[in-house]
Amino acid sequence: MKSFRKVVTLHLSERMGFRNITPEVEAALRESGIQEGLCLVNPMHITASVFVNDDEAGLHADYARWLERLAPFSASTDPAKGGYLHNRTGEDNGDAHHKRQIMGRETVVAVTKGKLDLGTWERIFYGEFDGRREKRVLIKIIGE
Amino acid sequence: MKSFRKVVTLHLSERMGFRNITPEVEAALRESGIQEGLCLVNPMHITASVFVNDDEAGLHADYARWLERLAPFSASTDPAKGGYLHNRTGEDNGDAHHKRQIMGRETVVAVTKGKLDLGTWERIFYGEFDGRREKRVLIKIIGE
Amino acid sequence: MKSFRKVVTLHLSERMGFRNITPEVEAALRESGIQEGLCLVNPMHITASVFVNDDEAGLHADYARWLERLAPFSASTDPAKGGYLHNRTGEDNGDAHHKRQIMGRETVVAVTKGKLDLGTWERIFYGEFDGRREKRVLIKIIGE
Repeated sequence: MKSFRKVVTLHLSERMGFRNITPEVEAALRESGIQEGLCLVNPMHITASVFVNDDEAGLHADYARWLERLAPFSASTDPAKGGYLHNRTGEDNGDAHHKRQIMGRETVVAVTKGKLDLGTWERIFYGEFDGRREKRVLIKIIGE
Repeated sequence: MKSFRKVVTLHLSERMGFRNITPEVEAALRESGIQEGLCLVNPMHITASVFVNDDEAGLHADYARWLERLAPFSASTDPAKGGYLHNRTGEDNGDAHHKRQIMGRETVVAVTKGKLDLGTWERIFYGEFDGRREKRVLIKIIGE
Repeated sequence: MKSFRKVVTLHLSERMGFRNITPEVEAALRESGIQEGLCLVNPMHITASVFVNDDEAGLHADYARWLERLAPFSASTDPAKGGYLHNRTGEDNGDAHHKRQIMGRETVVAVTKGKLDLGTWERIFYGEFDGRREKRVLIKIIGE
C-alpha cells in the first residue's frame, strides 16, 4: 500500500467564499503515483468545508445567501439577539462553525486508473466561512 | 491491496425521492471478494445524495417536506422572489443543489469479514432531488 | 495492508448532547499500530452523528439551540402540528433523524506517522439526538 500527504494553503480575502481546488487535488494525485485507492480532502480548520458541487458562480452566490439565512452572522454573544455563545471566547465566528456543518467537513473521492473518479460536473471546493487568514487543506491518498 | 469499482444506474420517476441501495452495495462487495476495508458510495451527480438512515416511508416523507422548507423549489432566477441565480444557466434545479448539501454527497462504510459493517438500522440510500433522468452511483471498495 | 476495528459504547443521560471522543479514537489508533492510512468513525445508529469541530461548551449550546430551530422536537405524528410521520412507528424521535442529517453521519480522518492528522482545533465528537440509551460508535482503520 502507498500513502501520500500534501497540504495546500489558501488565503481568501473575503469572509465567505468558494474556491475550486480540483486542480490542486489532481496535481497531488499525479505526484503520488497512486492508480487505485481513496483520496481524502479536508480543511484543517473548523470554520471551513471541503465539498463537491458545481463550478458555477450563480450557485455559489445562492449558497452564500442561503447559508446566511440558515446561520446568520452576528458578533453578539447573546442568543436572544441572534448572537452565539461561542463568541464569548473573543471570536466573532460563531456563525461560521454552523455554516461549515451544513456544507460538511470533508470529501472522499475514488481514485481509478490514476485519476479522480468524478462525475461530469463534480468539482471539489474549498468553502471558507471565516476568511481573511491563511488556512490549510489536507490531501491524503492511500492505495496502490 | 485490492480495489473494486462498480457503477449502478438509477432512474427515479419523481423529482425528489429516496431508494434503499444497500442490496446493490452488498452485491458489489460480494463481487469484490474484499474482506476488510472501506467502501465509498457516492452519486456521480451534484443534485443527489448518498446517505445512511432508516428504511421507513414516513421518515422519507418527513425528509422531503423538511428539505422543501429549508430549500424550496423555484424555477425563478430572482432571489427576491425565492428563486436561484443558478437557474440563469437554463436549469430549474437550484433548489436540488441545496437539498443535496443538507443530505451530504457520500458515505464511507467499513467492510468487516466480507460484510458491510452497519448498525442494526443503518441502510444506504440514494437521495434524488432532480429526478426523471438517468443517474449513476459509484461504489469503490479498497481493502484485502 | 492492515485493518483494525473497535467499537466504543456511549450512554448519554441527556436527549441531545456532544462528547469529545478524540481520546478514544487516538487510543484505538495506538492499539492498531497503523502508521499511515485512513480512520473512519461513525455511530452505528441513525439518530446520532460523528463530526469534527471545536471542543467549546458555548458552541455546543449554540448547536443544540440551532438544531432545535431547524428540526424541532415533537412527539406528534401530524406534520400540520409540527409533528413527524416517522413517529407513527411508535417512536418520538423523528426530529433526531433530521438533526443527524445536518451534523452528518461519519468522519474520515487521515492517519500520518501513527497519529490522527488533525488541525490545531479539530476534535472528533459524538453528537447524540435521542439519548438515554446505550449507543455504539465504530472505529475502522485501514493502512500500514
